[in-house]
Amino acid sequence: MDDAMESGNLGPYQDRPRIFPNMRTKPYTPLIFRVIKRINVRILFVLLLLGLGAIFYIGASTSPIIVFVFSVCIISFVLSMYLTKWVLAKDEGPPEMVEISDAIRDGAEGFFRTQYGTISKMAFLLAVIILSIYMFRSTTPQQESSGLGRSMSAYVTVVSFLLGALCSGIAGYVGMWVSVRANVRVSSAARRSAREALQIAVRAGGFSAMVVVGLAVIGVAVLYSTLYVWLEVDSPGSMKVTDLPLLLVGYGFGASFVALFAQLGGGIYTKAADVGADLVGKVEQGIPEDDPRNPAVIADLVGDNVGDCAARGADLFESIAAEIISAMILGGTMAQRCKIEDPSGFILFPLVVHSFDLVVSSVGILSIRSKRDAGAIGVVEDPMLILQKGYSVTIVLAVITFGLSTRWMLYTEQAPLAWLNFALCGLVGILTAYVFVWITKYYTDYKHEPVRTLALSSSTGHGTNIIAGISLGLESTALPVLVISVSVISAFWLGHTSGLVDEAGNSTGGLFGTAVATMGMLSTAAYVLTMDMFGPIADNAGGIVEMSQQPESVREITDVLDAVGNTTKATTKGFAIGSAALASFLLFSAYMDEVAAFAHVAFKQVDIAIPEVFVGGLLGSMLIFLFSAWACSAVGRTAQEVVNEVRRQFIERPGIMDYKEKPDYGRCVSIVASASLREMIKPGALAIVSPIVVGLVFRIVGYYTGHPLLGAKVVAAMLMFATVSGILMALFLNTAGGAWDNAKKYIETGALGGKGSDCHKAAVTGDTVGDPFKDTAGPSLHVLIKMLATITLVMAPVFL
Amino acid sequence: MDDAMESGNLGPYQDRPRIFPNMRTKPYTPLIFRVIKRINVRILFVLLLLGLGAIFYIGASTSPIIVFVFSVCIISFVLSMYLTKWVLAKDEGPPEMVEISDAIRDGAEGFFRTQYGTISKMAFLLAVIILSIYMFRSTTPQQESSGLGRSMSAYVTVVSFLLGALCSGIAGYVGMWVSVRANVRVSSAARRSAREALQIAVRAGGFSAMVVVGLAVIGVAVLYSTLYVWLEVDSPGSMKVTDLPLLLVGYGFGASFVALFAQLGGGIYTKAADVGADLVGKVEQGIPEDDPRNPAVIADLVGDNVGDCAARGADLFESIAAEIISAMILGGTMAQRCKIEDPSGFILFPLVVHSFDLVVSSVGILSIRSKRDAGAIGVVEDPMLILQKGYSVTIVLAVITFGLSTRWMLYTEQAPLAWLNFALCGLVGILTAYVFVWITKYYTDYKHEPVRTLALSSSTGHGTNIIAGISLGLESTALPVLVISVSVISAFWLGHTSGLVDEAGNSTGGLFGTAVATMGMLSTAAYVLTMDMFGPIADNAGGIVEMSQQPESVREITDVLDAVGNTTKATTKGFAIGSAALASFLLFSAYMDEVAAFAHVAFKQVDIAIPEVFVGGLLGSMLIFLFSAWACSAVGRTAQEVVNEVRRQFIERPGIMDYKEKPDYGRCVSIVASASLREMIKPGALAIVSPIVVGLVFRIVGYYTGHPLLGAKVVAAMLMFATVSGILMALFLNTAGGAWDNAKKYIETGALGGKGSDCHKAAVTGDTVGDPFKDTAGPSLHVLIKMLATITLVMAPVFL
Repeated sequence: MDDAMESGNLGPYQDRPRIFPNMRTKPYTPLIFRVIKRINVRILFVLLLLGLGAIFYIGASTSPIIVFVFSVCIISFVLSMYLTKWVLAKDEGPPEMVEISDAIRDGAEGFFRTQYGTISKMAFLLAVIILSIYMFRSTTPQQESSGLGRSMSAYVTVVSFLLGALCSGIAGYVGMWVSVRANVRVSSAARRSAREALQIAVRAGGFSAMVVVGLAVIGVAVLYSTLYVWLEVDSPGSMKVTDLPLLLVGYGFGASFVALFAQLGGGIYTKAADVGADLVGKVEQGIPEDDPRNPAVIADLVGDNVGDCAARGADLFESIAAEIISAMILGGTMAQRCKIEDPSGFILFPLVVHSFDLVVSSVGILSIRSKRDAGAIGVVEDPMLILQKGYSVTIVLAVITFGLSTRWMLYTEQAPLAWLNFALCGLVGILTAYVFVWITKYYTDYKHEPVRTLALSSSTGHGTNIIAGISLGLESTALPVLVISVSVISAFWLGHTSGLVDEAGNSTGGLFGTAVATMGMLSTAAYVLTMDMFGPIADNAGGIVEMSQQPESVREITDVLDAVGNTTKATTKGFAIGSAALASFLLFSAYMDEVAAFAHVAFKQVDIAIPEVFVGGLLGSMLIFLFSAWACSAVGRTAQEVVNEVRRQFIERPGIMDYKEKPDYGRCVSIVASASLREMIKPGALAIVSPIVVGLVFRIVGYYTGHPLLGAKVVAAMLMFATVSGILMALFLNTAGGAWDNAKKYIETGALGGKGSDCHKAAVTGDTVGDPFKDTAGPSLHVLIKMLATITLVMAPVFL
Repeated sequence: MDDAMESGNLGPYQDRPRIFPNMRTKPYTPLIFRVIKRINVRILFVLLLLGLGAIFYIGASTSPIIVFVFSVCIISFVLSMYLTKWVLAKDEGPPEMVEISDAIRDGAEGFFRTQYGTISKMAFLLAVIILSIYMFRSTTPQQESSGLGRSMSAYVTVVSFLLGALCSGIAGYVGMWVSVRANVRVSSAARRSAREALQIAVRAGGFSAMVVVGLAVIGVAVLYSTLYVWLEVDSPGSMKVTDLPLLLVGYGFGASFVALFAQLGGGIYTKAADVGADLVGKVEQGIPEDDPRNPAVIADLVGDNVGDCAARGADLFESIAAEIISAMILGGTMAQRCKIEDPSGFILFPLVVHSFDLVVSSVGILSIRSKRDAGAIGVVEDPMLILQKGYSVTIVLAVITFGLSTRWMLYTEQAPLAWLNFALCGLVGILTAYVFVWITKYYTDYKHEPVRTLALSSSTGHGTNIIAGISLGLESTALPVLVISVSVISAFWLGHTSGLVDEAGNSTGGLFGTAVATMGMLSTAAYVLTMDMFGPIADNAGGIVEMSQQPESVREITDVLDAVGNTTKATTKGFAIGSAALASFLLFSAYMDEVAAFAHVAFKQVDIAIPEVFVGGLLGSMLIFLFSAWACSAVGRTAQEVVNEVRRQFIERPGIMDYKEKPDYGRCVSIVASASLREMIKPGALAIVSPIVVGLVFRIVGYYTGHPLLGAKVVAAMLMFATVSGILMALFLNTAGGAWDNAKKYIETGALGGKGSDCHKAAVTGDTVGDPFKDTAGPSLHVLIKMLATITLVMAPVFL
């Protein structure tokens, strides 16, 4: 942890003129670490042990399953600490590299601090609003009977909201923390061996993936068991365990809330810097990417960390948390309907699945070793193959452990073969993830037809390139939708025919089957996240290599890693949107259960033949379009500011191009930082405010027109239409962006005229357009879809 | 009518070397005209009188309202013949112009012939399929009781399908017929007076608008009254008049079917030629638009006629037909539920509204006269103001006549004030149209903020221009959606509170209120269509002026007309999508009534909480994305062929640039023609086949899972999600395209560096991308939305 301190003191290099004097801020350590550092190590150790003891005590009072979950999480935290130590023990390379890396770290940490400052203020404001809403809402009959009063449920919701927000913030911070430290170590290692560089990047990614997944699991588990013990669940006269998961929705909403702004702010930052740097540097001045003469280059490198690492960490954290909670709610509901004697298996199943996820992914991560070519430069094995070998290991283990956990958790005497059906549901999910990854690769990899056609269309100009890219993106929505359709329906029917029936003899397992498929899809989340995190670290390492003007052979190694990173990033997005599609359908069902519980009437149908409900749907789809518009235009506007600043510097400091004058990197960093903080508010506020406003307005309309539950119904339609449009729009944006990027890369390999040709220029235009698509609007939509679901869950009382 | 003959014989100019020898095909007259011409005039007159007599006899046996409708339609046909005579009496200008115009006419007629040949073959095939489906379906209890057997209803549906297709084809042909004759007369008049040129273009547009609207109305009216008389409706033991409109759905489907392919083929033709010509001519060679040296210029000019005139004629024909039929169905259902004694007023109301539309629009068209500046060149009054004055006249009259017709048709003693509520619904519709037009203008006119910002973003390059344009388009969906939402709900509630109640005392007028609002929106359709047709005629005239190398002052006049035409075209699209949105909600309700009638059970809800239904929605939205993708990529691919051909000609005939060699215009025409015929099949087939396949598949799934009506429900969800996504996508595509076009025009006025600057080049890229958006994919989506509704109506028996 003293790494942050060390960077302020450059030791032997202090006499050299600093390259980035204007970037240097005082080294930043979050308050919590500073407090911890001041405490005596022994006291700290005792405190830690006491905390662990308390957690295990609570866990043991709840269920042995929780103890298992805690143990796995803690072991994986220990493992991730080993990974960090291993990564940090690697050398940071020559002083040039260290200075660049320091500048990137400062920029990233500075932005993170300001951004999360803003986000936490908004989170507290929202917490107050939620508190006041819950104080005035009605309570459900179950809650009343269990003695969980109005104020109690208000506090529970608010506390879980804040806990979710905090954990989401930590997940983001961890992602960034490791990436700004690993990047320079990867660049340094690239001077020695490709395999070593790969291994550092993978282990750094693995560290944050383990922390993110572990945090999501342990957060829910702690909250669940604390509430279990505190509310004396399942003791006579109090709440039933099957109702407990509904109290956790605040956690999911907190996570989504932070993730949305993290993704928006980070996404705008990274792409505005990237587009701005490219437009002047590559297109106008003809200098290479990441050239030290470009004043926006540091901002671009900072962007990789705050946009890709921090934001993706928060994003996946939120995905997993939302999916766990929705599956727990559905498991609880089903267990209750089927009168299963011990429902804890069905409720805690998602936690177990993700504990196994941690185990199998660790094996996959550790299976990537540097043995054969250690020390030899030039023997570059295809890193994609290495990563995929690890993935294969992980996925085989995941299938086995998934089967084991269904047998362990979901066996019930009422339906002895139900667990087998659910295991098949999990297999459906795993297959869906696999097919999704394959489709994304088909549409975005230049080994296949679509990207080659796109590259060819660049030869007739900018216009045909854009038309072809947009068509490709729109077309690429078709196959994933067919796959989702098949998997939703088949998982539903596998669940439906599992033999679980309610008292009236109706099959009830359908929705839970879909939930299990979603868990199957996410059962290798930690490894997928590792592959995703690997990309920006490699990208950054390449930037550091370029900026510190290393020999061509080093740059070649980081280039190969970077290219692989692009593909893994694209496939992770396919994975994320697939799981978002499945998860949102679960959350929608949870919302309907929640409304029914509050309204004390059945709420089973959302009938789009009612004009108001149809209008709700129209508004929901519109929300997606407007949100995407604002996200893209934020990038465009900020990029224009960067372009103007870079142009100004090139004019005012003509020596920059001959390396005689130093560009002012700091100004670009601060321009991008302040602009992206400003720009993230509008789309973020839209996403949060509009469902609330629509629900309230139609609640009032319903009141005056004598239509009960109208607000809740309209919001439900809004949610569903927004989900469908959001899935399609995100697929379109992600794939088009990825395809444009790779069409450019394909031309850069020498095809169709190669670098510098007119064809290449047209391809660069496409790449520029694709940047905000694939890294700002697209990933923000993943978060938006789930946030809409969690916000409607939390705000349900408002709409009634 | 002998104009087509005359063009084969150039009279005094025959000794000059022909400019376009390779374009000359034998003069084309449709078979029907050739037959008519061979018949003796007197016999023809007698036949005509007999036909009219029969029509009026049938009309009189049905209802006096039908007689009124017939009279108005025939008067408006006479008026439109007067307008044609007036236009054709104008001179065609010097021989250069005539030759160019002949080449355009031949290209357009040749394409039309081949295109409609293909379409009619497909229509006959589909007719056979429909026939066989209806032969094997079950009949409704009403039909059985009325003696309308299985084969009878099959024949009725097929005949009305073919009649709708035929009328839609005629509407398209008329639009093109007049535009290829008016264009040269407008160019010629532009040499004398701006006002005269404007008047010719308006009257030519007015002619086809009157024919299109008149045909839609008289077609439905003839079909309705023939069925009424033939089936002895309302006599004891036979069908009730309130069930009659459901038999007309085939007419709407036939119209949509032809319109879809007309719009797709024409849209691909016009934009592929335009984009191809621009990419090489404007961007690469730097020659002006419509320069005679560009080998693709004739293809571009032909495209205006087949894409904008013919296709838009078929499109609006289909809009009006679909809207009339759906409103008649809803009127009939409501009248039956409320047990209104004479339901014919509610059923025939739409026909009366559109008859008045013909009357008030004629007044509007004739109010545009050439009196003041006759003969004076240079005194160019703003043509937009003149057109808008005409529109104001039309709209004021429309409000009055709409009020009168509600009082006349919708007065009932059961609810004496209901007509007033419905009049207000109509006002809501008219206002909605007005606001829609205003919003479209705000987003696409360069007098306002959005297009100026877009133009400014071009100054930082191609990439930022595209990002800004896409954001603008996505954002522009928000306001129209809010307007539609407000008008759907307010019209519904005005109808709901009209006092019309069924036997159980429930309000039933809601949906009919929405229908009346839709009619209000379309109550000035003929004038709006006139303004729309005006655009391509003026555009073509400008092309002829440029190609025949007239003085600058003449070109200036046609340029002004062309610019106004762009704005009116954009606003018409707003109008078309607004009415499509409202109409599709009506058709959806009609579909549910139809399914209920076939299935003999109530079908009132489409519950998106059922996984299969949700999947249907997902597939519906996906259909829109895939269709747009294929429409755009068709243009891109065809444009690339054009680019390669034009480049080849410039290389092989270097003399073209110095006017020493003549380009081979004919080759470009035939390349574009054959490519667009080939490319229109894939998206068109997708639109027709996918709802049928989805319905069938889920019918089978429902059968095996014991879920009745599953196919029908899934199709319903598909329809609704496709409608919502289609509305948003069409708004996005139309607005983005229009804004890019006008941003380019704004820069061409000299702003931000003017013509030839880098900023202008970036803006041209945006314009190129916008072309297939706004003229191919966008307008095709309008048709698609309604075609989906009519196809599900006709195919409903398949899904049960």
